[in-house]
Amino acid sequence: MEREALEQLLEGVRLGEMTVAEALERLRELPFEDLGYAKVDHHRALRQGFPEVIFCQGKAPEHVVAIVRSIRARSSLVLATRASRELYEAVHADAPEAVYHEPARIIQVGEPRPDPASKGAVLVISAGTADLPVAEEAAVTAEAAGCPVERLYDVGVAGIHRLLAHRQALDAARVLIVVAGMEGALASVVGGLVDKPVIAVPTSVGYGASFNGLAALLGMLNSCASGLVVVNIDNGFGAGYFAAMLTRL
Amino acid sequence: MEREALEQLLEGVRLGEMTVAEALERLRELPFEDLGYAKVDHHRALRQGFPEVIFCQGKAPEHVVAIVRSIRARSSLVLATRASRELYEAVHADAPEAVYHEPARIIQVGEPRPDPASKGAVLVISAGTADLPVAEEAAVTAEAAGCPVERLYDVGVAGIHRLLAHRQALDAARVLIVVAGMEGALASVVGGLVDKPVIAVPTSVGYGASFNGLAALLGMLNSCASGLVVVNIDNGFGAGYFAAMLTRL
Amino acid sequence: MEREALEQLLEGVRLGEMTVAEALERLRELPFEDLGYAKVDHHRALRQGFPEVIFCQGKAPEHVVAIVRSIRARSSLVLATRASRELYEAVHADAPEAVYHEPARIIQVGEPRPDPASKGAVLVISAGTADLPVAEEAAVTAEAAGCPVERLYDVGVAGIHRLLAHRQALDAARVLIVVAGMEGALASVVGGLVDKPVIAVPTSVGYGASFNGLAALLGMLNSCASGLVVVNIDNGFGAGYFAAMLTRL
Amino acid sequence: MEREALEQLLEGVRLGEMTVAEALERLRELPFEDLGYAKVDHHRALRQGFPEVIFCQGKAPEHVVAIVRSIRARSSLVLATRASRELYEAVHADAPEAVYHEPARIIQVGEPRPDPASKGAVLVISAGTADLPVAEEAAVTAEAAGCPVERLYDVGVAGIHRLLAHRQALDAARVLIVVAGMEGALASVVGGLVDKPVIAVPTSVGYGASFNGLAALLGMLNSCASGLVVVNIDNGFGAGYFAAMLTRL
Amino acid sequence: MEREALEQLLEGVRLGEMTVAEALERLRELPFEDLGYAKVDHHRALRQGFPEVIFCQGKAPEHVVAIVRSIRARSSLVLATRASRELYEAVHADAPEAVYHEPARIIQVGEPRPDPASKGAVLVISAGTADLPVAEEAAVTAEAAGCPVERLYDVGVAGIHRLLAHRQALDAARVLIVVAGMEGALASVVGGLVDKPVIAVPTSVGYGASFNGLAALLGMLNSCASGLVVVNIDNGFGAGYFAAMLTRL
Amino acid sequence: MEREALEQLLEGVRLGEMTVAEALERLRELPFEDLGYAKVDHHRALRQGFPEVIFCQGKAPEHVVAIVRSIRARSSLVLATRASRELYEAVHADAPEAVYHEPARIIQVGEPRPDPASKGAVLVISAGTADLPVAEEAAVTAEAAGCPVERLYDVGVAGIHRLLAHRQALDAARVLIVVAGMEGALASVVGGLVDKPVIAVPTSVGYGASFNGLAALLGMLNSCASGLVVVNIDNGFGAGYFAAMLTRL
Amino acid sequence: MEREALEQLLEGVRLGEMTVAEALERLRELPFEDLGYAKVDHHRALRQGFPEVIFCQGKAPEHVVAIVRSIRARSSLVLATRASRELYEAVHADAPEAVYHEPARIIQVGEPRPDPASKGAVLVISAGTADLPVAEEAAVTAEAAGCPVERLYDVGVAGIHRLLAHRQALDAARVLIVVAGMEGALASVVGGLVDKPVIAVPTSVGYGASFNGLAALLGMLNSCASGLVVVNIDNGFGAGYFAAMLTRL
Amino acid sequence: MEREALEQLLEGVRLGEMTVAEALERLRELPFEDLGYAKVDHHRALRQGFPEVIFCQGKAPEHVVAIVRSIRARSSLVLATRASRELYEAVHADAPEAVYHEPARIIQVGEPRPDPASKGAVLVISAGTADLPVAEEAAVTAEAAGCPVERLYDVGVAGIHRLLAHRQALDAARVLIVVAGMEGALASVVGGLVDKPVIAVPTSVGYGASFNGLAALLGMLNSCASGLVVVNIDNGFGAGYFAAMLTRL
Repeated sequence: MEREALEQLLEGVRLGEMTVAEALERLRELPFEDLGYAKVDHHRALRQGFPEVIFCQGKAPEHVVAIVRSIRARSSLVLATRASRELYEAVHADAPEAVYHEPARIIQVGEPRPDPASKGAVLVISAGTADLPVAEEAAVTAEAAGCPVERLYDVGVAGIHRLLAHRQALDAARVLIVVAGMEGALASVVGGLVDKPVIAVPTSVGYGASFNGLAALLGMLNSCASGLVVVNIDNGFGAGYFAAMLTRL
Repeated sequence: MEREALEQLLEGVRLGEMTVAEALERLRELPFEDLGYAKVDHHRALRQGFPEVIFCQGKAPEHVVAIVRSIRARSSLVLATRASRELYEAVHADAPEAVYHEPARIIQVGEPRPDPASKGAVLVISAGTADLPVAEEAAVTAEAAGCPVERLYDVGVAGIHRLLAHRQALDAARVLIVVAGMEGALASVVGGLVDKPVIAVPTSVGYGASFNGLAALLGMLNSCASGLVVVNIDNGFGAGYFAAMLTRL
Repeated sequence: MEREALEQLLEGVRLGEMTVAEALERLRELPFEDLGYAKVDHHRALRQGFPEVIFCQGKAPEHVVAIVRSIRARSSLVLATRASRELYEAVHADAPEAVYHEPARIIQVGEPRPDPASKGAVLVISAGTADLPVAEEAAVTAEAAGCPVERLYDVGVAGIHRLLAHRQALDAARVLIVVAGMEGALASVVGGLVDKPVIAVPTSVGYGASFNGLAALLGMLNSCASGLVVVNIDNGFGAGYFAAMLTRL
Repeated sequence: MEREALEQLLEGVRLGEMTVAEALERLRELPFEDLGYAKVDHHRALRQGFPEVIFCQGKAPEHVVAIVRSIRARSSLVLATRASRELYEAVHADAPEAVYHEPARIIQVGEPRPDPASKGAVLVISAGTADLPVAEEAAVTAEAAGCPVERLYDVGVAGIHRLLAHRQALDAARVLIVVAGMEGALASVVGGLVDKPVIAVPTSVGYGASFNGLAALLGMLNSCASGLVVVNIDNGFGAGYFAAMLTRL
Repeated sequence: MEREALEQLLEGVRLGEMTVAEALERLRELPFEDLGYAKVDHHRALRQGFPEVIFCQGKAPEHVVAIVRSIRARSSLVLATRASRELYEAVHADAPEAVYHEPARIIQVGEPRPDPASKGAVLVISAGTADLPVAEEAAVTAEAAGCPVERLYDVGVAGIHRLLAHRQALDAARVLIVVAGMEGALASVVGGLVDKPVIAVPTSVGYGASFNGLAALLGMLNSCASGLVVVNIDNGFGAGYFAAMLTRL
Repeated sequence: MEREALEQLLEGVRLGEMTVAEALERLRELPFEDLGYAKVDHHRALRQGFPEVIFCQGKAPEHVVAIVRSIRARSSLVLATRASRELYEAVHADAPEAVYHEPARIIQVGEPRPDPASKGAVLVISAGTADLPVAEEAAVTAEAAGCPVERLYDVGVAGIHRLLAHRQALDAARVLIVVAGMEGALASVVGGLVDKPVIAVPTSVGYGASFNGLAALLGMLNSCASGLVVVNIDNGFGAGYFAAMLTRL
Repeated sequence: MEREALEQLLEGVRLGEMTVAEALERLRELPFEDLGYAKVDHHRALRQGFPEVIFCQGKAPEHVVAIVRSIRARSSLVLATRASRELYEAVHADAPEAVYHEPARIIQVGEPRPDPASKGAVLVISAGTADLPVAEEAAVTAEAAGCPVERLYDVGVAGIHRLLAHRQALDAARVLIVVAGMEGALASVVGGLVDKPVIAVPTSVGYGASFNGLAALLGMLNSCASGLVVVNIDNGFGAGYFAAMLTRL
Repeated sequence: MEREALEQLLEGVRLGEMTVAEALERLRELPFEDLGYAKVDHHRALRQGFPEVIFCQGKAPEHVVAIVRSIRARSSLVLATRASRELYEAVHADAPEAVYHEPARIIQVGEPRPDPASKGAVLVISAGTADLPVAEEAAVTAEAAGCPVERLYDVGVAGIHRLLAHRQALDAARVLIVVAGMEGALASVVGGLVDKPVIAVPTSVGYGASFNGLAALLGMLNSCASGLVVVNIDNGFGAGYFAAMLTRL
C-alpha cells in the first residue's frame, strides 16, 4: 500500500500535478490522526490486516473513549485490551454496541468477520483455572481476527492423562497456544507431542519463586521442544494476534 | 502415524493374532534406539517432519559420532549444532560426506532436499557483524529443512537507513528472523514495518549491562510491535526450525 | 490402577465385547470430570493416595464452591489451600461440615482418617512466630493425610539453646519439616543435628535483602547439611504432602 | 561564588577583622538553613543555576510545606516533584500562587523566566500515551529552567512512520529527550537519526518481563546508537534538568 | 549415641570417677580429628549412617589426600566428590585401592556393602545426555550407601513417548531422582505420573536464558506436581544421599 | 553465665544433690518461657546485655501484647520495633507506661538507664529527609542501650558542603551510623573522612533502579572506604544495636 | 544532507531527468558500502560529525582489517575500539600509519584535527588506577573528535581530599566524565560539586557484590546529584563521544 | 591533624607570614604523592592509623612495584592484597624484605608492631577448608595492624558440635570474624552464641544456586542474630581491618 502511495506521489510530481514542495509536505502527512496525547494509526489495518488495538493499561479513561471513537469512525471493529469493567462502562456509554469479554478483560466494538483466508483453527490450551484470563485474552483476540478458535483448559502436566486424552484436539489444530504459569512445563510437553507451531505464553500465576511469571518464562525459553516460540508474561493478546496471522499464511 | 500403529495393535488383539501380554509389551517398544547414554528418536522425522538434530554442547565426542552413525543409518540428513571444528573432524573421519558450516558451527551429513510444500522464503536479518554466527545457525537450519533463505546482515537501528533501503527484501519474505544483541531494538523496528511473522533471536553479543543477552531478550519480549515472538538467547536453531515450519503452513 | 483399566479394556477387545472404535473412544474417557473451567481429577486419590487439593489463589469463589461440591460427591475429604475467610464462608454455606484452619488458611471438608501405613510422626519446626502460617499449612496438610504431627515453633538460631533443648523431639520424629524465613539457617542446623529426612520450607518472612524469601531459599538450597531438600517459598502444603508420603514408605 | 567567600574570609583574617577562631566558626556556617529534619540548601541556586527542587516522595506533607516556605523566602521559583494532588492542596493553602502540573505531578510556585543563555529548544519525545507523566515531568522541569520545550508524543517504533513524519522537529531541536517504556527501542532509533545529544528516560510502563522498567533501562544502556545517555527509570526530572543545562552550554 | 556419652559422663561425675574440671574438659573433646586446615568428623558415620564425604572443589590436593588417609584409618568406605582425574591420581598414589567413577567425578576408596535396611531401589532418570555427570553423581552416591540403583537416561519431555514407554520402571522404584537442565519440565511430568517421592535435581546444562541452571531450578521449585522436592543445581550427591536415606525409612 | 550454671549443675551431681536423671531434665529447662506461639528468651539480657526486642512485623497484635507482658515481668525495659500506631495503642492499653517513638516506629516500655560502660557517643547521619524513619530506629535503639546519641540529618553528597561543615561532629563521635538510600554514596564519603567504625544502613528510599534499596546496599558493600560494614536494608535496629555494643568495648 | 538528496531526486523526477522507476531504485542506493558481512556507513561522518568507529569485540580480524581499509579510502581518521594488540598488529601490517593506544585498547589510523567548534575541554576523572583503561578509552575518543582533554586520575572518595585539592580543574572544564567501579560514589560527589554536565561511566572493576559493574551502574543511576547522566558499564567510548558532542554545542 | 594544619595556615595568614594567594595555593597541596597513574596517600596512616594498602587486582605489576617503593620510603609497613605469586616475585626483586602470605595472597613489606592500644584478640572462624584464603586474608590483615589473632577453621554448621566444642575460644575473643560460603549460616549461629561484635564475610565458595557468594551474602544480611554486620563477598581485608579497629576502641 505504502509503495503504491509513494508511486502515485512520484507520478504526480512527474506529471507536474504536484510541486516538489507539496510532495515534501505530503510525505509528512501520513495517515494517522493526531489527538495530541495519541496518534491513532488508521493505516495499521491496511499495513497489518488488523485494526488498531488499544492497550488500556496506564491510559486515562477519557483518552480511551476518544481513541475508540476515532477508530470506530473508519473501522468496523475495535479492541481495547487490559480494560477494567469501569472502563468498559465509560466506553459503552459512548458506544452502545460495545461488549465486554469479562475474563479476557477485552472491550470489543463491532463484530469480527470470519476471515476467508484462515486455513485452520487455533487451539488455546491452559494449564490451570487461574490461567484463564490470559487464555481468554488470546482466544478473543484470535476470534476478533476472524479465525476459528478451540479451547482446552485445565490440562496441566501434574495430571498428564488429562492432556493425553485430548490428542485428537491437538492434531486438529493448525496452530497451538499454550498458556501456563508456575513452571510452564505444559508448553514443552505439548511441543513434544505435535508437529505444529506452538506459541507459549507464560503467566504470572504462581507464588514464591515463580517471581511473577519469571519461572514460567525461563522454562518456556529453555524448552527442549522444537517448534516453540515465546511471548511476554501474560501477553495473551500477542499470542492470539500471532496465531491468527499464522492461520492466514 | 502413532494412531495407525495403535489401531493396528488393537486390531491384532481383536483378531487374536496377538495376546494381551504381547500387546502390553509392544506398547513399550516404541521406535527409538537405545544407545545407553542416549535414546535416538527415529520417529521424530515422522512425527515432526525434520530429522533428529544433535545438540553437541556438553556431549562427549565419541557419543556424537555414534549418534550420527545411528541416525545416518535411517535418515538422509543429519544436523549437529553447537559443534566445534574438532568435533567436526571426529565426525568427518567416520562420515566422509560430512560438511562443516563454520560460522554457523553446524555439521551437516547429507544433502537437504527442497521442500515442495514450502510456500516462500525465510529472510534472516542481523543487526551487527558479531551476530553472524547465530544468524547463520538460523539460516543453515532453515535451508536444511528445504526452504529458500535470504540474508540481510549488519542493518542495526543505529543507521536505520540501511534497513529502510531494503524494504523490498522485507516485503518479499514469507517469514522473518531478526537476530540482534545489545538492546535488540531491530526486532521491534522490523516488526513495525511488516505484516509477516517475525521471530526475534536475542544474542549474547554486547558488554556491560547487556548481561550476556538479557538486555536483548527483555527488549524483544517487551516489544510494542505485534506479530513478533521470541526464542532463547543465541537460539538460531530454534528460530530457523520454527521459520521453516511456517513456510510449510 | 490405570494398568488394570488398560488390561480390562484390551481384554474386552480380545473377547469382542468392545469394538476397536469403542476402545479408542474409551481411551479418551479418562476419569476426570469436566466443569468447563476446570477438569476435576477424581483418579488422583487412586493414583496418589491423597484427595484432590484445591489451590484457591487466583480462582473465582463460585468455581471453588463448585469444585468442592464435585469432589465431595466422591471423596470423604477435601482440602482447599490459600483460602481467605471470605472464601471459607462461601464454601461453608454450601458445605456446612466445612471447617477453617485460620492460621493455615485451609478449608477442610470431611475428617481425615489416621493412616494405618504411617510409621512415625512428622515434626514441624519453625524459626519465628511470623513463620506460623506456613508451618501450620504444612502441619494441617500432613494431618489431613492421616499421619501424626508434632509442632516445635519459634526456635530460630539466634538463640540456639532453644533448639538444643528439644533434641529429644528431633530424635523422636520420622521426618522433619523446617520452616524459616530471613536467612533460613535453621534448616542447616537441624540438618546437621539429625539423621532424618529434612524438608526445608523457605518463607517470605523478612524485609530488605530477604527479597520476599529469596535469601532463605538460596540459603536452604546451598545448605552444607546432607539429607535436606527444599520446596518453593511459602509452600507449606508441598512440604506437608511430601512428609506424609515419607511416613508411609 | 564559594571561592569568593573563601577569599573574603581569608582577607578578613589577614586584615585582622576576624579572629582565627571566628574564621573557623564561619567555615562551618555555610549557607543552608537547618529545619531540623532538613537542611535547605539556598546556595544551590548560586552553585548550580537552578532553585532547590523538593523531591516529595517519602516526605511528610507538613515538611514539604515548610521547606517550600523556606525556599520561597529567597527564591522566585520553587519546584516540588512527585507530588500528589493532596500535597498540592496543602502547599496551595500556604502559597496561593502555587500551580499544579497534573500529569507531571509537579507543584510550581513562582514563574520561570526565559533564560537568555538558552541557545535552542528541548524536544521531548514519548513512545506511548502511558509514558506521558514522565515526559511531562521532563518538559515542565526544562521549562522551569527557562528554556523552550517542544513535545512529540506517541511515536513509538511499532509504527515508525509516525516518527519519520516528524524529521523536521528532530532536526530543529538542540537536545532531545526520549521517554519510553516496554523495550525502549525508540531511544536507539532517534539516536540513529540525529546528530544531537539524546537523553533516554526508561519508564516503568509495561508488564510482565518489563520488570518495572528494567527492560527499557537495559535496552537504552546497551543502545548501539552513539550520542545517547541514560537516566534512572521514570526520572523525567533528571532528564529535563540535564537538557536545560545543555541548552545553556 | 551422644546422649549415652553424656549419661556416662554424668554418671562418672556422680561416682566421683571424674572431677568436674575433667568433665568440663571432656565435653570439649568431641570425636573429630583436627588436621589444622580441616576437622575430620569421624562421628558422622555414627550420627548419620554415612561416611564423611569429601567435597573436593576448592580444596588443595594434598589436603584431600590427607583427609582421605585420616578417614580410611577408621572407615571402610570414603567418597570424594567433584574430583578431577588429576586429583584421583594423587589419591590413588596414596591409596591404591581407590577407583574413579569418571562421569560422576567421584573417587571411591573401599567397597560399599548392600544395606540390609534398604527396602527398594532408587531410579535415576535424566532428561538428556549432557545431564549424565550429575545423574551419575547421584547414582554412585546412592550405591555407596548400599542401596540398589536403576538408571533411565535421555528421556526428556520433547519426546515424551520415550518416558511413557518406561512406566514399569517408574512403578518399580521406591524413590525417583529426576535430573534435568534447560527447562527442567521432566520433573513435573514424572511427578504427575507416580505416587512416589521425587527428588528433582536441576543441572546447569543449557545456554542463554538457562542462566546456568536457574531456569531449571525455578521450574522445579514451581512444579505443580505434588510429592516433589528440590536440591541445589548440579547437586547429584545431595539427591543420591537423600534418596538412599528414604530407602531405609 | 551459662558456664557457671553448668558448673553448678555438675557440682550438684557430684555432691549427690541431684540425680543424673534430674540433671538431664534440667539441661533441657533453659530459661525461656513458652507461650506456645513464641518462646520468650529471658536469658538474652544476660547473654547479650540487651533486653529481648520484639520484631513486630508479621506478628498478631494479641501475641505482641502477651510477649510484652511476659518480658516486662522480668525486665525493666522492652522494645518493640516495626510497630504501627495501632499496635502501640493495643500495647499501651495493657502497659500504660509504654511510649511510642513515632518516626522510629518503636514502642518502648520502661526507661533506658545510661550505661556506665559506654565510652563515647554514637553519631547517626542520614542522607535525606526520607531516610529519617530508619535513622530514628537506629538512634532510639542505641539510646535504649544506654549510650549517648547525636543526630546529623539531611547531609547527602549532592551538597557535600553540608557534611563537611560538620567535621567536628564526625570527629567527636566514637562510632558512626550512616543511613542512606538511592545510591548510598554518603557512607563511602564518611568512611573516607574518619578513622572510626562506620556502620552503613542502606534504605529502601528511592525509585526506579534503586530496586527497593538494592542499589544502596550494593554501593555500600562495594565501598572503597575501609572501616565500613553493612547491615540489611532498612535495618536501623541492627545498626543501633551494633553501635551500642561498640561503645561498650 | 539527506533532505537535499531527496529534493534533488524529486527535482530530477519533476524535470523528467529521471523515471519513476529509477527514482525508486535510487531511494534504495543509500551511501553505505556492502562488504557482505558488514555494511560500512560512509554517510555517518556527514550525519553525525564523527567517522565510523569499529567496535572490534566479536569481529574476525580479517573483517576488521577490511573495514578499516574501506573507511580509510574516504575518511582521514578511523578508530577501532576494544582492540587487542594482536588485532592492532594485523591492522598495522595493512595500514602502516596506524597507532595503538595501549591502555585505551584503541587503534587509530590518521590524525585528529582540533575541532574549531569546540568551546572548552573535557575533564576525565577516574576513581582508581584499575579504572584507567576505561578512562583512557573516553579520553582518546574525545581527542579523536578534536576537543581538548584533561585527565585527573585516582581521586576516589575514600580519600576525598585528593579530589577537593583539584577544585580548580573541575571548575575549568566544560564537561566532566567520571569513571568509577566498585560503588561508583565518585560520580555523585563530583556531580554535587560542579554546575556542569557530568557523564558517569560505571566500570566492571571490583569483586564480589560488584557483580561486574552492576553496583556502580545502579549507584550512578540513583545518584542524588542533578546534572548527571549514565552510559553502559565500561563504555568509555560512549562517554567520550557524548562529551565531545557537548563541547561543540 | 588536618584541623591543626588549617589553624596554622590561618595563623600564618593572620601574621602576614603568608599571602592570601599562597594560602589558597597551599590548601591545594595536600599530602599525597602523584605518580601520574596513582595518587599515593601518605596522610592515610595519620588519618586512619593504618598504612596505605594496595589492592592489586587490575593494576599493572610495574605500577604496584612503584607504589610499594613510594610507600616504603615513608612507612615501616606496606600490604599488597589480592597479589599473585608472580606479582610477589616482581615486588621481591625490588624489595628483598618482602614476604608472601600464600593462602592469604598478601605481600607484606616490613614487620607489624604489636599495637599497645589493642585490648583483646580477634578470632577468625571459617566454615570450611575452601574458605581458608579469605579467612587468612582477614587474619593477616588484623595481624598487620598489630593485634593478636586466633584462628578456628572448618567448624561449619553441618556438624555443629565442632563449633560448640570451642565455646571457650568464642568467649575469649574481643571481636569475631566469621568466614563462610554456601549458605553462610555459621555467622547466624555464632552471632546467637556470643555477646561480641561479629563481622560476617560471605565467600564465593559454593556452586549452583550459591551464585558466587550471593546466597551467603543474602543469608548474612538477613541474619536474625543481633550484633552482626557484613562486608563484601570475599572481602577478608575489610573484615580484618574493621576488627583491628575495634580492638583499639
